[in-house]
Amino acid sequence: MNKLPTVFEDHRQAIDGELRAVLAEHPSPLYDMLRYHLGWIDERGNDRTEPAGKALRPTLCLLACEAVGGDYRAALPAAAALELVHNFSLIHDDIQDGDEQRRHRPTVWAVWGQAQAINAGTAMRVLVNSALKRLEDHGVSPARRLKIQELLDEASLRLIEGQYLDIDYEKRLDITVADYLRMIEGKTGALIACALEAGAALGTDDTEIIEGYRQLGLAIGLSFQIRDDILGIWGNQDVLGKPLASDIIRRKKTLPIVHALEHARDGCRAQLEAYYGNGHSQGSVPDVLDILNRVGARDYALRMDGGYTREARAILADLPATDAARKQFEELISFLEERGF
Amino acid sequence: MNKLPTVFEDHRQAIDGELRAVLAEHPSPLYDMLRYHLGWIDERGNDRTEPAGKALRPTLCLLACEAVGGDYRAALPAAAALELVHNFSLIHDDIQDGDEQRRHRPTVWAVWGQAQAINAGTAMRVLVNSALKRLEDHGVSPARRLKIQELLDEASLRLIEGQYLDIDYEKRLDITVADYLRMIEGKTGALIACALEAGAALGTDDTEIIEGYRQLGLAIGLSFQIRDDILGIWGNQDVLGKPLASDIIRRKKTLPIVHALEHARDGCRAQLEAYYGNGHSQGSVPDVLDILNRVGARDYALRMDGGYTREARAILADLPATDAARKQFEELISFLEERGF
Repeated sequence: MNKLPTVFEDHRQAIDGELRAVLAEHPSPLYDMLRYHLGWIDERGNDRTEPAGKALRPTLCLLACEAVGGDYRAALPAAAALELVHNFSLIHDDIQDGDEQRRHRPTVWAVWGQAQAINAGTAMRVLVNSALKRLEDHGVSPARRLKIQELLDEASLRLIEGQYLDIDYEKRLDITVADYLRMIEGKTGALIACALEAGAALGTDDTEIIEGYRQLGLAIGLSFQIRDDILGIWGNQDVLGKPLASDIIRRKKTLPIVHALEHARDGCRAQLEAYYGNGHSQGSVPDVLDILNRVGARDYALRMDGGYTREARAILADLPATDAARKQFEELISFLEERGF
Repeated sequence: MNKLPTVFEDHRQAIDGELRAVLAEHPSPLYDMLRYHLGWIDERGNDRTEPAGKALRPTLCLLACEAVGGDYRAALPAAAALELVHNFSLIHDDIQDGDEQRRHRPTVWAVWGQAQAINAGTAMRVLVNSALKRLEDHGVSPARRLKIQELLDEASLRLIEGQYLDIDYEKRLDITVADYLRMIEGKTGALIACALEAGAALGTDDTEIIEGYRQLGLAIGLSFQIRDDILGIWGNQDVLGKPLASDIIRRKKTLPIVHALEHARDGCRAQLEAYYGNGHSQGSVPDVLDILNRVGARDYALRMDGGYTREARAILADLPATDAARKQFEELISFLEERGF
C-alpha cells in the first residue's frame, strides 16, 4: 500500500489524547469494552501499544478547520466525537454482520458476547455529547456547541438509516445502483461529510464555505466506500489481511454485486440469484467472480469511484483553503484513491 | 389492580403529542420500528388505538415541574426525551434477554430480527437530543438545555452500566444485596431520579430543591424495581399477563433470589446453585419457590420495598410542593405500592 500521508501522523496524538480524556472519567468495567475496541487495552485489561485505526474522520475534521483558517485545537472535541460515532457503529455493525474479527483482533461481541457489545456500542454513542462538552474549554458558546451536536446527531441518524437499508437489502435481489447509493450516502457518506462540515464550522461562520466542505466530504465518503467495495472483492490479501473475495464469501451486496444483479442475464442471472438468494446454498466464489468479470463489474465500480474522486478534486479546487491544507487534502485524496492495491 | 391515579391521565395526551412530533420528522421505515414499539402502529404499519405504557417517567417529570411552581408545558420536551431513553433501553433489553413478548405483543426483535432492533434502539437514543431541541420553543436558553441534556446523558450511562451489571450477574452466584442495589440504582433508579430532577430544574433554579426531587425520584425508583421483582415471582398472573414465577423461569437474579443465595444453607444452597448455575439443567420452579419461602425472601423484599416507600414519603414531606402536586405524588406513591396484587 502507498504510504500514509503525514497529515494522519500530525494530529494522531492530539486526537488520541482527546479521546482518552473523554473515557478517563468512566472507570466502570463497561468502558473497558470501549477501550478494547479503540485498541488501548487487550482482553485482560493490559495496555497495548500497537496502533489503532487511522482516524480518517477526526483527521478530516481537523484539516477542514485548519483549511478555513481556524485553530485545529478548537476542533479536537468534535474530532473525538466523530471517532466515537464511527466506532459505536463499528461495534454494532460487527454484531449485526456476525463478524468475529476486526483489525486482526476478536471483535467486542466475540469477546464479551452480543448482549454486552450492544451496551458497549450504545454507551460509545452517548459519550458523543460528553466529548462535545469539552468545546467549552475552547471558548465555544453553548449555541455553537448545540449546532455542532445537531450535525453529529443528524449524521448518526443517517448512518443508522443506511445500516437499516444495508440489512434490509440482504434479503432482496432487486437492489438497483440508485438503492445502493442511497444506502452508502447514509452508512458512509453522512459521517465523512459531517467531519468536514463540523471542522469548517469551527473555523469559520461563512455558511457557503461550510456547505462546500460538506460536499467535499460527501464526495470523499462515497469514493471511499466504493473503493472499499472493490477491495472487498479484488483487494490485495497481504495488504488487507482478509481473504480474497471476502465480501463474496460474506454475501455482502456491494456495488460490483449490485451492478451484476442489474446486468447479468439468463444463466448468469440465475447463478447470482442462487448464490445471493435466501437459500445461500448454491454456487461458488469462482463462479461469482467469473460473472462479475463478464458484466464488467470491476471496471464499472472503478469508473464510479473515479467519478467521485474527480468530483472531490473539483470541489476542493473551488473552495478557499490555506495552501498547506489544500496540499494535505490533495495528498489524502490521492492516498485514498490508491490504497489497497 | 388498583386504579391508575388521575395524574397519569392528565398529561397522557400532551406527552403522546410531544413524542409524535419528534418522530414525525423521520419518514424512513427505520422509524416504523420505533412507532411499533411505542404502540402507535402494528407490524404492517396500520394505526393502533390501544393504550401504550403508562409513561411513568414523563409523568413524574411534569409533576415535579408543576410541584415547584413551573408550567408543565415547558417540561414536555424533557418528558418526551425521558420516554425515549426508557424505550431505547427496553428495545435493547428485549434483545439482550431474548424476550419475545412485551405488553402482550411481539417485541421489536421478534418482528424485525436482532440486527434491525439494535438499529431501532440506538436511533431512539439519538432522538433524545432532537426531543430536547424543542425546549427552545418554550424559551429555554441553550445553556439550560445543555444542563438538562447532561442529566439525561448521565442517567443513560448509569442505565447502561446497570444493564451491564445485570448481564454480568447472570453468570455469577456470588451476588450480594449490595451488588444488586448498585445494579438497580443504575438500571432503574437513575432515570426515575433524572425524571424528577429534570422536571424540577425546568421549574426552579433552587439547587437544593432540585436535589431533593432527585432523591425523591431515587427512592421511588428503587421501590419500583423491588416491587417489580416481587411481582415477577408472586404477582397476580391475570393482572400482569405473565405466568406465575416468570422471573424464576427466566432465571433472573432479582432481589428475592439474591437474598436466598446469600442466606440458603446446605441442601437448599446446593439446589439454588444447581438451578442458577451455568448448567441450567437441574431443579424446578416449585423447588425454588419452596426455598424462597424457607429463607423468608418475600418478606425480606417487601420490607425493603416498604423502606424505600417510607423514605420517598419522608423526602416528599420535607420538600416544598404545591398542594395539588403533593396530593398527586402521594397518590402515585400509594399506587406504586399497591400495584399488581
